[in-house]
Amino acid sequence: MRNPQLNAQGELQHLLTTEGLPREILTAILDTAEPFTEVAEREVKKLPLLRGKSVFNLFFENSTRTRTTFEIAAKRLSADVINLNINTSSATKGESLLDTVDNLAAMQADMFVVRHASSGAPHLIAEHLANTGKDHIRVINAGDGRHAHPTQGLLDMYTIRHYKRDFTGLTVAIVGDVLHSRVARSQIHALTTLGVPEIRVIAPKTLLPSCVERLGVRVCYDIHEGLRGVDVVMMLRLQNERMQGALLASPQEYFKSFGLTPERMALAKPDAIVMHPGPMNRGVEIDSAVADGPHAVILPQVTFGIAVRMAVMSMLGGAK
Amino acid sequence: MRNPQLNAQGELQHLLTTEGLPREILTAILDTAEPFTEVAEREVKKLPLLRGKSVFNLFFENSTRTRTTFEIAAKRLSADVINLNINTSSATKGESLLDTVDNLAAMQADMFVVRHASSGAPHLIAEHLANTGKDHIRVINAGDGRHAHPTQGLLDMYTIRHYKRDFTGLTVAIVGDVLHSRVARSQIHALTTLGVPEIRVIAPKTLLPSCVERLGVRVCYDIHEGLRGVDVVMMLRLQNERMQGALLASPQEYFKSFGLTPERMALAKPDAIVMHPGPMNRGVEIDSAVADGPHAVILPQVTFGIAVRMAVMSMLGGAK
Amino acid sequence: MRNPQLNAQGELQHLLTTEGLPREILTAILDTAEPFTEVAEREVKKLPLLRGKSVFNLFFENSTRTRTTFEIAAKRLSADVINLNINTSSATKGESLLDTVDNLAAMQADMFVVRHASSGAPHLIAEHLANTGKDHIRVINAGDGRHAHPTQGLLDMYTIRHYKRDFTGLTVAIVGDVLHSRVARSQIHALTTLGVPEIRVIAPKTLLPSCVERLGVRVCYDIHEGLRGVDVVMMLRLQNERMQGALLASPQEYFKSFGLTPERMALAKPDAIVMHPGPMNRGVEIDSAVADGPHAVILPQVTFGIAVRMAVMSMLGGAK
Repeated sequence: MRNPQLNAQGELQHLLTTEGLPREILTAILDTAEPFTEVAEREVKKLPLLRGKSVFNLFFENSTRTRTTFEIAAKRLSADVINLNINTSSATKGESLLDTVDNLAAMQADMFVVRHASSGAPHLIAEHLANTGKDHIRVINAGDGRHAHPTQGLLDMYTIRHYKRDFTGLTVAIVGDVLHSRVARSQIHALTTLGVPEIRVIAPKTLLPSCVERLGVRVCYDIHEGLRGVDVVMMLRLQNERMQGALLASPQEYFKSFGLTPERMALAKPDAIVMHPGPMNRGVEIDSAVADGPHAVILPQVTFGIAVRMAVMSMLGGAK
Repeated sequence: MRNPQLNAQGELQHLLTTEGLPREILTAILDTAEPFTEVAEREVKKLPLLRGKSVFNLFFENSTRTRTTFEIAAKRLSADVINLNINTSSATKGESLLDTVDNLAAMQADMFVVRHASSGAPHLIAEHLANTGKDHIRVINAGDGRHAHPTQGLLDMYTIRHYKRDFTGLTVAIVGDVLHSRVARSQIHALTTLGVPEIRVIAPKTLLPSCVERLGVRVCYDIHEGLRGVDVVMMLRLQNERMQGALLASPQEYFKSFGLTPERMALAKPDAIVMHPGPMNRGVEIDSAVADGPHAVILPQVTFGIAVRMAVMSMLGGAK
Repeated sequence: MRNPQLNAQGELQHLLTTEGLPREILTAILDTAEPFTEVAEREVKKLPLLRGKSVFNLFFENSTRTRTTFEIAAKRLSADVINLNINTSSATKGESLLDTVDNLAAMQADMFVVRHASSGAPHLIAEHLANTGKDHIRVINAGDGRHAHPTQGLLDMYTIRHYKRDFTGLTVAIVGDVLHSRVARSQIHALTTLGVPEIRVIAPKTLLPSCVERLGVRVCYDIHEGLRGVDVVMMLRLQNERMQGALLASPQEYFKSFGLTPERMALAKPDAIVMHPGPMNRGVEIDSAVADGPHAVILPQVTFGIAVRMAVMSMLGGAK
């Protein structure tokens, strides 16, 4: 079965997940993003690569932050951007997801950036476009359920490569609510493909998927053991709805056991970097002294995120 | 009394309703729209016709779908588009409709696209602009109460002309909730002006306006009788609020009596087309086998809708 | 202590308040705005001064009207505009104001237009940007709590200068809820700096700040005494939440004592002008006969407001 993200020539057609993306494609995206970080420093931050293209931000789940990063990336490529918060519109009129997609496709869309609470929704949309002869329309997954958030995974790879250059000697720890995290899944697949030899996941048992070891990671229930000697610490956000739930005693207890403090960071390599996809819960999963400290590369992640999204968009939708 | 949509030279000034629009104007809009359908197929889907113009989408009633079609049309003409959902803003501060209009006019608006729950609101705005010396600002009705939805009516005419070429030999059936439908009213006026000799409306008595025959249509309470030999079937959306109301037994009952099924479509001409303004209630007013079947031209309607809106906007607001 | 709005060379860096802005800066803004009023009359209302710049409208408090004026001003300067209603987004995810600002700064923002319910928020943001080495990002206060609304104050100054030419011989009355009004504060500081010799505030005792005289104004509890011989009447909006509160008997009582009627306007100079920041409460603080009458310059204020905002934005963010 062909990877639905690639066309017959093996070129990127949609970005749905980092799972199964070949190393050459991952590297090509990171390479394409490099010059875009410079564009952002210019007086005039515009390139004409998507001029006259219509990019639809289809947000079936609200996320101002993610929507903004795609909107700014598309506008810097000179696209026309249309924002649609679908929960507040025809979805409430009972229209099905695919009818909505058909309609927007008929408006001559060039690209859909899709955020959805259900795992697999962007994949379903891409498949439907292929089935209806509309596969010139590109789909970018901007986060679906617990499944994937590939542009977040890619910007994390960009950040690691920026600071560490080479993936093949690294030890990387992912800390937190792996169970509910689409970000963690996208990170693990990309790290593995790019050749990271040791990936550790650090979490309480209640926040780990069963059989997580099958992803090729080492499980650590103790943060001290997990952080020892790592080059990269990738924090996950603890969703508010987990904090008072059955899975955790309290945010305070969580911080006591798994919060990233300067003392714990001292176990990592001296030049280790700390990442977080944001928004942070200071004092829950991360101490402010670490968030604002010398190891943190959390704000550069955001900057690189714009460049990576410009790279993906220009590779998918640029003039042919 | 002069038609408020036309200036002293008989040129289109506002688009408020299809009622009373001369056949030459209707035809000119459809002719202008033709080349815009090709623009949408190009790599760069932009024309500079409204460059530097400010188009305000004034939506006093929420409708993401309709707002999106106008936004994309205006952006493809290079206009600056400002979206205003007025129910969530100064309307709640108690400002009157006309004070809001005065304010936006003072911001040097060029065009208002108006959606309002009250019949006549766009007409009132156009009148007020004339009274205050601001009649260089154009008004497009994007749906007002039960009154009119002229761009929907026009895109329907474009679709019929595209598939049937000539209006003067056609039998057209409009099926569904005619009583509450601004779309039906706009369709009937346009079809009549363009010379369609037989227009039938098919609905239960409770969903027909009294004296609907005065509009020059033939009333059919039986869908089998109504569909026999027609060239065009124009479905209407059944609003959710009608389904559980006093006017209907249930959606299931409605479908049993008036739902468009393949069996019923077999009564129409073999090359008949089926239209729907969307969003569809599959299994209520239309069977999925028809919605996705060979007679349906529902998605081409959407595509033509962008071109027709570009045509209206460029005729109203283009450089003089 | 240096004025945080000015750089070491005394040039405008941010626009946070009219308080403490030197007369030359105020005058420079008004002078810069003059040609922009003509741009708005052109067929193509675009200037390339902010081309490729990213302007973020950060509205922590909803205000469609104010947001629209900044959006249209930025778009006419060719900026990319991103609208963020933060109350409905990551603020609800518990992210702090400064984390949000850090994130948007990392997206290579050029300008923040900030509206916030808390006095001092834009000042805090500007300070934080300086502390984090991001002071190339400009901040414009679009209204903070009861503190300031400087672009409103400036457009009021523009309007007065337009109609009266010289500030140094004027008597100006500010009427209404001075206690809760950021607009009044911004007006008083600007009027004083521009040399207006007599500023009167007219309000019931319950709607005046204690020690208001310290601002250099004359207090009048009687509107007849206050309006006698004035050149300019600046009305304030009575917020709905005040009308039923402990501070006032009723809107009707307020109108009886402080509503601006034609009879009361007859006490002012024959060529006096009446201003209002909008949206108006007709029949509460102002009679419709005055709002729509010959003295009113309320709609020109709106037009000048766009030009003044374009002036501020181009001075702060224009190519260097």
